[in-house]
Amino acid sequence: MASPIASAALKARVHRPSMLKKLCSPKDMLHHFPNGSYIGWSGFTGVGYPKKMPTFLADHVEENNLQGKLKYSLFVGASSGAETENRWAGLDMIERRAPHQVGKSISKGINEGRINFFDKHLSMFPSDLVYGFYTKDKPSKKLDVVIVEATEIKADGSIVPGASVGATPELIQMADKIIIEVNTALPSFDGLHDITMCDLPPKRKPYLIMGVEDRIGTTSIPIDTEKVVGIIESDYQDVTMENTPADQASRDIASHLIEYFEHEVKHGRLPKSLLPLQSGIGNIANAVIGGLEQSNFKNLKVWTEVIQDTFLDLFDSGKLDFATATSIRFSPSGFKRFYGNWESYYDKLLLRSQQVSNSPEIIKRLGVIAMNTPVEVDIYAHANSTNVMGSRMLNGLGGSADFLRNAKYSIMHTPSTRPTKTDPHGVSCIVPMCTHVDQTEHDLDVIVTEVGLADVRGLSPRERARVIIDKCAHEVYRPILKAYFEKAEFECLRKGMGHEPHLLWNAFDMHKALNDLGSMQKVQPW
Amino acid sequence: MASPIASAALKARVHRPSMLKKLCSPKDMLHHFPNGSYIGWSGFTGVGYPKKMPTFLADHVEENNLQGKLKYSLFVGASSGAETENRWAGLDMIERRAPHQVGKSISKGINEGRINFFDKHLSMFPSDLVYGFYTKDKPSKKLDVVIVEATEIKADGSIVPGASVGATPELIQMADKIIIEVNTALPSFDGLHDITMCDLPPKRKPYLIMGVEDRIGTTSIPIDTEKVVGIIESDYQDVTMENTPADQASRDIASHLIEYFEHEVKHGRLPKSLLPLQSGIGNIANAVIGGLEQSNFKNLKVWTEVIQDTFLDLFDSGKLDFATATSIRFSPSGFKRFYGNWESYYDKLLLRSQQVSNSPEIIKRLGVIAMNTPVEVDIYAHANSTNVMGSRMLNGLGGSADFLRNAKYSIMHTPSTRPTKTDPHGVSCIVPMCTHVDQTEHDLDVIVTEVGLADVRGLSPRERARVIIDKCAHEVYRPILKAYFEKAEFECLRKGMGHEPHLLWNAFDMHKALNDLGSMQKVQPW
Repeated sequence: MASPIASAALKARVHRPSMLKKLCSPKDMLHHFPNGSYIGWSGFTGVGYPKKMPTFLADHVEENNLQGKLKYSLFVGASSGAETENRWAGLDMIERRAPHQVGKSISKGINEGRINFFDKHLSMFPSDLVYGFYTKDKPSKKLDVVIVEATEIKADGSIVPGASVGATPELIQMADKIIIEVNTALPSFDGLHDITMCDLPPKRKPYLIMGVEDRIGTTSIPIDTEKVVGIIESDYQDVTMENTPADQASRDIASHLIEYFEHEVKHGRLPKSLLPLQSGIGNIANAVIGGLEQSNFKNLKVWTEVIQDTFLDLFDSGKLDFATATSIRFSPSGFKRFYGNWESYYDKLLLRSQQVSNSPEIIKRLGVIAMNTPVEVDIYAHANSTNVMGSRMLNGLGGSADFLRNAKYSIMHTPSTRPTKTDPHGVSCIVPMCTHVDQTEHDLDVIVTEVGLADVRGLSPRERARVIIDKCAHEVYRPILKAYFEKAEFECLRKGMGHEPHLLWNAFDMHKALNDLGSMQKVQPW
Repeated sequence: MASPIASAALKARVHRPSMLKKLCSPKDMLHHFPNGSYIGWSGFTGVGYPKKMPTFLADHVEENNLQGKLKYSLFVGASSGAETENRWAGLDMIERRAPHQVGKSISKGINEGRINFFDKHLSMFPSDLVYGFYTKDKPSKKLDVVIVEATEIKADGSIVPGASVGATPELIQMADKIIIEVNTALPSFDGLHDITMCDLPPKRKPYLIMGVEDRIGTTSIPIDTEKVVGIIESDYQDVTMENTPADQASRDIASHLIEYFEHEVKHGRLPKSLLPLQSGIGNIANAVIGGLEQSNFKNLKVWTEVIQDTFLDLFDSGKLDFATATSIRFSPSGFKRFYGNWESYYDKLLLRSQQVSNSPEIIKRLGVIAMNTPVEVDIYAHANSTNVMGSRMLNGLGGSADFLRNAKYSIMHTPSTRPTKTDPHGVSCIVPMCTHVDQTEHDLDVIVTEVGLADVRGLSPRERARVIIDKCAHEVYRPILKAYFEKAEFECLRKGMGHEPHLLWNAFDMHKALNDLGSMQKVQPW
């Protein structure tokens, strides 16, 4: 089998000659992937993931009818591209997956019991991996093969990642063999990363980051070149989607939040330029960043997990001074804009490993303002971020709890209701009791919906319930939730167990009405 | 009203003459405590709290029938002494309390709705206090009066605390007025503390602690002496209780854990001297520390919240090199032993503020082994640490989530059952779904009961359920829990929502059987 010949484009990206000698085709690497292998991929939120090797393996399974016969344990920092991990799931190639995923087929595989999935705090997944927790049942105690995408290989063999760092440093630390996909269709991201590897206790040191711009590491990821079994040239783009535009409800939420920030600044609890912002993914997050662009705040800074299109607007408006994250996940048009104006963004951005971007240590120190969207929030300020009806996995916890636990301001934003087939307000996002708890009452400061904002700092549970129901619940659910709370309060106080009153046998009745009758509104009186 | 005269003992402890001029009686201070005041006390887990002023105020209320007419918002790092905060609660003197408490009257007041209590991560309470979150509704934005116990006042006016640091540095930072109780009945604890104050973002810096012995602060707490309105001489001891001896179940749990640590050392995931230990309060915690004393481990170190009697045994056995915490809460006989052998313990102990002892940053960096006892754990490894039957507050979250979230090993130990009046196994501590969630499935690595140990690292929820039921549940509950899980799994997988299978409308049926029939064993078949 003839090895491929290095293109000029590839040679321009690979500055270590011995690496070029390892140039190969995906087919040459097939024998490294026996059934049952533990595999790591670079990538985070659908950017920076390897594309050619996973696509080849999927083709191989499809062409040879090997569905269910080549299955892997797959570890990626967060979600990968739909055309890779989701296709793998559709071909029954995933035995185990952690700690996050996006895609219809993979979520189907998880919820139908074919894929063993566990979600973990994204800050913690890489360190638990290096602790050996996920490879403890393997004789080698390592991941068998790690495939990483690079946009450049330096003379010392180290690699420059693309639009994400994610868990790549730790995956590489734990790799038995490494395959590098050098992507020549993307620009080299050299200089855009701040890379730190993972020390183990008792030898771990502080992250000496005191501002979002601070650099503490190298610009590329060191590689044990002896572990590299192959280099593959790739010219596949990151496949991302266009963003959905913000709707009125999202804009209302954003406006409540801006007003709240102004109030906090006025009372001296926030500086005029606020504190570093973390913003999740989705409609509301986009509206909030859009709202900041329209606001009087300036010299803003961002310490977050994922940088999205709206941050480009915030940069362009002159209001955003610096942003750092573990991934840049732009839409196709966002990437075009970013690559087209590289010079104007280049020195205002820094990508770090997810262990650093989501580090409790740094989030706490910087006093981050964290904003995320849950599945549901309950009247006592617990939130469900992962499992619909307590059981059906969406995408996983992600970094929500890393940020919400450690932030100075821990904010959950959600529409007050969501539609069902028969009722435009069939689901209330404010419920008596969450069917799954990922964020506890001890973690959240603010709940905000399009209806209003509940500031629950320093409140007891019964005070919290009153303000959340009054300020955040949709008007069709306000009386229902109020009736639940008042009956629970009456019953529990009477029995001397009224700190956080619940009607335990009826706590999920709204969910039952949704399940049986198509709308939470149809719940029987408590 | 004549001011008291400084005793020789007091003069030996107060090295700043201007402070001695502020010597007064509790009665002189009464006017600083109008109804509705926000009050802070030093103290943590019933040691180092002020005694004379709170006792005087309680006497004052009792003698003048002022119950319910002098009510305060009371902020203490954790629990105070029963003869102070619990007596205050009994006299209806507490309007609001955070973030932790111990005592029958105070818990009664909370659960009957007379006291607004909120529990918060103990690491986070002091920083949220300094953020101004708890005083945001006060015009002064400060705590009105903070009463602190000191064992010495230095020439610069700074104070040396006693057996705890807790939230005293931050309470003092937020105080409008300060009253110092100088306790001459305790030895001066000078040199036993490492004190850091609370910086605010964006000016916060790393805690440069890389080993349990590391010092980063001062040996006393700086005081703005102009805020000191009075000095009171006190000769009241910390009132603590004798410990209950470990029972067989606790010893079995300890032995499972020691075996697990040996296994982890053997496989290279733990060093031979383990990593710094955190151990909660109670029977099981004592048995685990006792078990380590009998084990082959040596050169152990402790990074914890509270140091208890059993640590003295571990010191005496030569196995413990160093221990650090925010409080030394010995029994009366333990304190006797400690004070009697001061020289042998003095340089192996360090007390820090609870913001440092419970710091996510440091717990994560050091790779702490965290062990705590819950109310109940569910089959998917969520834990309830606070609210019985979802509603009745015990003592509060404490530092459990600070440690369990950030530790390298996050361990929950519990007896598999607890007795009710009619059934020695009426309560299963392993349940289908926790009635309140304080620790999530994303946080726990190990569940252990006297039955056995479940290592759930890297397992999907359905795998976790199987191992927890098999290894940890009591034999009378094993078939009940298995039947729940299998039916839930069948139903949910069928509907394509089986990531974490639940029978949502029956998830609390075991609790209902306990409530209605006196034992969880009497639950109807699922």
